[in-house]
Amino acid sequence: MSKYDELYNIIKKEITTEQLLPGAKLPSIRKAAAIYGVSRTTVQNAYFALAADGFIISEPQSGYYIAYKKAKKTEEKKQTGKRNILYDFKSGNADKNSFEFNLWRRYMKNALRQDEKLLSYGEVQGEYELRDVLSDYIREKRNVISSPNRIVIGTGHQSLLGILCSLIDEKGTVSFPDKSFVQGASLFGDYGFDVKYRYKDADIIYVSPSHMNKRGDVMPNRRRIELVEHSSKNKSLIIEDDYESDFQYSGTPAPSLHALAGGGNVVYISSFSNLLLPSIRISFMVLTEELAEKYERELYKYNQTAGKTEQIALSQYIRDGHLKAQIRKTRRFYTTKTKNFAALLSEEFKNAKIEISENALKIIMRIPFSKSLDVFEENGIAVLTESYENGILKMILNPSAVNEDAFEAAIQALKQVLN
Amino acid sequence: MSKYDELYNIIKKEITTEQLLPGAKLPSIRKAAAIYGVSRTTVQNAYFALAADGFIISEPQSGYYIAYKKAKKTEEKKQTGKRNILYDFKSGNADKNSFEFNLWRRYMKNALRQDEKLLSYGEVQGEYELRDVLSDYIREKRNVISSPNRIVIGTGHQSLLGILCSLIDEKGTVSFPDKSFVQGASLFGDYGFDVKYRYKDADIIYVSPSHMNKRGDVMPNRRRIELVEHSSKNKSLIIEDDYESDFQYSGTPAPSLHALAGGGNVVYISSFSNLLLPSIRISFMVLTEELAEKYERELYKYNQTAGKTEQIALSQYIRDGHLKAQIRKTRRFYTTKTKNFAALLSEEFKNAKIEISENALKIIMRIPFSKSLDVFEENGIAVLTESYENGILKMILNPSAVNEDAFEAAIQALKQVLN
Repeated sequence: MSKYDELYNIIKKEITTEQLLPGAKLPSIRKAAAIYGVSRTTVQNAYFALAADGFIISEPQSGYYIAYKKAKKTEEKKQTGKRNILYDFKSGNADKNSFEFNLWRRYMKNALRQDEKLLSYGEVQGEYELRDVLSDYIREKRNVISSPNRIVIGTGHQSLLGILCSLIDEKGTVSFPDKSFVQGASLFGDYGFDVKYRYKDADIIYVSPSHMNKRGDVMPNRRRIELVEHSSKNKSLIIEDDYESDFQYSGTPAPSLHALAGGGNVVYISSFSNLLLPSIRISFMVLTEELAEKYERELYKYNQTAGKTEQIALSQYIRDGHLKAQIRKTRRFYTTKTKNFAALLSEEFKNAKIEISENALKIIMRIPFSKSLDVFEENGIAVLTESYENGILKMILNPSAVNEDAFEAAIQALKQVLN
Repeated sequence: MSKYDELYNIIKKEITTEQLLPGAKLPSIRKAAAIYGVSRTTVQNAYFALAADGFIISEPQSGYYIAYKKAKKTEEKKQTGKRNILYDFKSGNADKNSFEFNLWRRYMKNALRQDEKLLSYGEVQGEYELRDVLSDYIREKRNVISSPNRIVIGTGHQSLLGILCSLIDEKGTVSFPDKSFVQGASLFGDYGFDVKYRYKDADIIYVSPSHMNKRGDVMPNRRRIELVEHSSKNKSLIIEDDYESDFQYSGTPAPSLHALAGGGNVVYISSFSNLLLPSIRISFMVLTEELAEKYERELYKYNQTAGKTEQIALSQYIRDGHLKAQIRKTRRFYTTKTKNFAALLSEEFKNAKIEISENALKIIMRIPFSKSLDVFEENGIAVLTESYENGILKMILNPSAVNEDAFEAAIQALKQVLN
């Protein structure tokens, strides 16, 4: 045993047997060296180790003191504090019946078997095989023309937008459609952009044409072309968040802005969370040629956030055609579900005005109401209340997370609240 | 079929049969409406759909033109362009023998079976069960005292530092130990901090005490306490990146700055990539009480980047004690490997000066050299060359990614280059 281990043990024993009491000051290093007949370095090292192990505390400019018990977790574990929500019309979580879980598990297991791939750090830009299938996929589906080299993978939109912010040199004005996308707006704000809302002459225009607001309204074609033309004239950059474009039911799918603009001044961004599993948070963005060149030059500044196992699984899943099949299935599944629940609501609440959103995922319901809004949660219902004016409550209900077997019970719970 | 679908098909046919040739201008919307006997809206919609599908192109302020073929991928797929590296002494990738892959696969498979958990969006801060085991783990191992509520999970350090940057209101000065951590420095720079190097009076001091530089030097205890005392006096914030603290071999592990400072003004950040798999990129940070409160208030601004499946798998893996066992195993494995390779080098290159880094993961080799540095890559060797002065080349070799069976062959390849 080294000398300082010995000293460590001596002092530790004095503390644990309470010969030295909490709050007591230890002798200075110089003094202790004399007392114990060791070098100052030995004392110093023993004190370090005792401090690191929580037995003593160093007070700058004063000395060392016996700690008050070895600290436990300082704060109580917090209970999640959520009310018991039985009918969740708010989160947009998935219905397990919409997703072929066993198939996805098979692809994940297969990816987990690829030892060699998993032993190395991944590509910063995202795995090439995933960018490659994505390049084919978006070309075919949205006529977004991009080589794999212009595609950047990431977890969630925010990590990708962070990269985008740092790639844009001129931190000018950025326009968001409304205040609901707080994460994007605060990120651009943090990077020094001037955030505005519905400002068509902004340097950067963030739009989500297939999901313009909480109600899921779709941007009309005429407006799309106006936007593309205006931006081209203004030399502004469009960030097209293609969220929920796969959930458009009525009519032909609206063209992507990227395709309408010929790709020139549009960064296209999309993800799969709402098509597959909310827990698969892989997003991707297609950079303009100019931004892609800058990204490549400055690659050393960035990191990949998406997990390699999931990237490998996803690329093989898409390559084998399952994403397309899953989209068709998901769309059919949720449209039917929304319609069924809307029909039940119409039947039960004769005094309500009920509409289905353009993307057929949400129900907009206006109903006379005179209670406190807390009454929803008290009855186990989570719901998005958009406005409450002149005694009329406007709610947006997303039935995706509620199992169809629970629809009747959910209607009963809503009756408690609304009648 | 709707009228505009009809018109779409007519024009599409004229294009594909080359009655309309690439570059030709289409009639204006007004004209086309007259020609085809339909409304302008119908023409507009048909043109939109044709543009979206890549058959025609809209030129702002001019009109619509037939596109030049339906576009393919515009750029050639780029080959990765890497030379064939046989002996990688640079990347620090893992040796597959160091990791019990089957055990990890079992935990991942088990997590994949937890359907209900995977169907919902994860917690923004990271899964509670992971934060909970981490809180116990770092308390026991590094005496870092934190409740799960002060822990934030993320993928890689960069995403966590992004959150940290946005939580700190005063964008003052930040000091990094040297220029090697470009990602961190550029991120702080992007957020408006004034980045400096080795500046002890900075508002924020970023340090990595167990891996201070490329050579893996460890900060001496004396310097640790000085740093903690100076920062406490200066009211500066320390960001302690505890990278590779688990790889300290000689003597007792140095205390964490977080423990020495009693947690007050230290943000502790750590990850598992180099203990488990490079592809498991889960990091976590322990916020100060003040920053944790701000984070909780502004939670709506953030997203979780780490995959839910891996978070669940990791928390159960740690809970069952496998992380500790794996660390012991990894440490033993790589120390032995480094020592063995260093011994081979000493035997073969009598004219070299060979040292093992303090963390026993790397070999520092100084040897007379007179060729071009390209000769390494030409012989299939990747190596970090730190300096070349007065005919002496200083290299840092990390043998972790090279299989021990390939050591002899690697030595032969190095002989080609160095003799």
